[in-house]
Amino acid sequence: MTAFVPGLEGVPAVESRICTIDVENRRIIIRGESLEKLALERRYEEVAFLLIHEHLPDADEMKEFTKSLSTERVIPSAVITGLTCMPAGIHPMDLLRTGVSGLSAYDPEIDDVSVEANKRKAVRLLAKTGLLVGNLDNISVRKTFQLADDKLSHAENILTLIKNGKTQPWMSKPFETLFILYVEHELAASTFAARVVASTLADMYGAVVAGLAALKGPLHGGANEKATEIFEFDVSGAEEYVRDKLGRKERIMGFGHRVYRRGIDPRAEIAKQLLEEACGKVGDDRLYRVADHVERLMEREKNLYPNLDFYAAALYKLMGIPPKFYTPIFAASRVAGWAAHVIEQQAENRLFRPRAIYKGPL
Amino acid sequence: MTAFVPGLEGVPAVESRICTIDVENRRIIIRGESLEKLALERRYEEVAFLLIHEHLPDADEMKEFTKSLSTERVIPSAVITGLTCMPAGIHPMDLLRTGVSGLSAYDPEIDDVSVEANKRKAVRLLAKTGLLVGNLDNISVRKTFQLADDKLSHAENILTLIKNGKTQPWMSKPFETLFILYVEHELAASTFAARVVASTLADMYGAVVAGLAALKGPLHGGANEKATEIFEFDVSGAEEYVRDKLGRKERIMGFGHRVYRRGIDPRAEIAKQLLEEACGKVGDDRLYRVADHVERLMEREKNLYPNLDFYAAALYKLMGIPPKFYTPIFAASRVAGWAAHVIEQQAENRLFRPRAIYKGPL
Repeated sequence: MTAFVPGLEGVPAVESRICTIDVENRRIIIRGESLEKLALERRYEEVAFLLIHEHLPDADEMKEFTKSLSTERVIPSAVITGLTCMPAGIHPMDLLRTGVSGLSAYDPEIDDVSVEANKRKAVRLLAKTGLLVGNLDNISVRKTFQLADDKLSHAENILTLIKNGKTQPWMSKPFETLFILYVEHELAASTFAARVVASTLADMYGAVVAGLAALKGPLHGGANEKATEIFEFDVSGAEEYVRDKLGRKERIMGFGHRVYRRGIDPRAEIAKQLLEEACGKVGDDRLYRVADHVERLMEREKNLYPNLDFYAAALYKLMGIPPKFYTPIFAASRVAGWAAHVIEQQAENRLFRPRAIYKGPL
Repeated sequence: MTAFVPGLEGVPAVESRICTIDVENRRIIIRGESLEKLALERRYEEVAFLLIHEHLPDADEMKEFTKSLSTERVIPSAVITGLTCMPAGIHPMDLLRTGVSGLSAYDPEIDDVSVEANKRKAVRLLAKTGLLVGNLDNISVRKTFQLADDKLSHAENILTLIKNGKTQPWMSKPFETLFILYVEHELAASTFAARVVASTLADMYGAVVAGLAALKGPLHGGANEKATEIFEFDVSGAEEYVRDKLGRKERIMGFGHRVYRRGIDPRAEIAKQLLEEACGKVGDDRLYRVADHVERLMEREKNLYPNLDFYAAALYKLMGIPPKFYTPIFAASRVAGWAAHVIEQQAENRLFRPRAIYKGPL
């Protein structure tokens, strides 16, 4: 038996053609393309296509893919009705997970795990998850449901639905860039959970549901929601908040990452630029000053660097997006990554079945 | 980096005090007790208590635990209404997964991952999952919902609800014994998925939802549903069915197991005895003869042995339980095992975050 490594840290669990994190050179590569470049230069639809189809789309493919997304951007009324029954206080990730689970009943190819059927299911899941995320408050608070606008991009649709139409032109670009930055990150816990489920040859909806379940956790996607607390303060208030937390040996959410350890998350660097630009456009640099100050403080005090969640939280706050949407937005983006991993897992499957070292009574 | 092992076969992923499979001596140990002995001598409630509380209950504890289960054996009407909206053709595991996901909205301790709160959530999940499994057909076909009978045991309630009251006295004991045999089996794919989700400190409902998603797969819990095909035949028909499948190099469901490899699943030996006894009581030994014949045939032809799913399928068929319930019954039992693993994972947590070996373009 190989040695036991808690949390399988550093243990290779799959061979994959999807994504690699080059920590030393601060690069994330998705199917041969730099994620940083994709985030700054492409639309989310192109990156999702790249993940699912293994190459960037040409003009015709992009048109076709965008059309498929529009067509699939519908939710059966029975699912909406079912979700509307849930109590208003439900956690948005619980609502989303329940909705995606229920959608499985309506996919005509649910049990077909072939690569081609899985690619079609990926498009359906992408379209429907985005629409659900945009409608989380409509469903649970306002008991209504809004359709998407086919003239907008996938990311713009989500932003517009979440903001109930009250967007400003400057928001589209940083929202989409962040949305792309969240799309895929190798074997994160949610992606790993999705692959473990897929390895039983269970359907893609179940695998994505497992991904959603894992993403909710505060040690994973739930971190971006928690990272926002600090942005309630001005610079001196934020410093006090951090010193107080550190004094009580509490974790500062948005700092550190299992993979980057004591290096910076390259996605955070891009998000920091976006924040600086956005603050300039809004004409209020408080959030940037707080973020930059806390970043330096944490480097000095703990030798820890911000991850994507830290700067994403500041940007979402600047856009007036309530924190409860942060993890669902992450989910709506990451579903493309999960789908790519499910397709890959089931194309050349090996059931995940590790062992436990027994420490109990005999 | 340690060597890559597809499917993490043989790789230790956790240290655990819950269960160990002693392949050589054909023994499964749960918290120091022999599973075979538990299955033959105990009630399911005692085994679930053992999994959750780490010791067998005394009389007072058993009374209290049974009472808690009764109290929690209710489903909020909004969840039932939501599930009733789903189409009648929905896969029962999809319905169950959606229902358990929705139940998360009603747990007052949903985000408390302490050991004590997790133990209370385990009891709620146990009670409610069993009640949902019993009502799957009521919900999706008959659009009704039946309550449990507190005079019956947990397993008897499920059997009675599934059979819509048409049970026979001989069924109770073998159903309960099988139900206990399914309760826990170390790091099966569903259990592993549940632990990966729990390791993000996401809530127990999400972890169990991931377990349900994985259990549906035909390489895991879904196998018992598929294993039933062979029991449509008489002995010669079954032999023809097997030889035909083997000739086409197809898998015979219910044979072989990642952990037992070419040895017998000790749970299958018990289930075989149960089948022989049950056939005697019914006065028709066709199913036993078919099973025994196929077992010998598979040993001779493929050196493969039956697993629990094979004999469980025969027994469920003898009880007149439709195959679509086989995996949900497995789930209703295994939820106690998943809960124990979630409690253990979150009590001494380390986030699961393995790595991928990149084989794509750079």
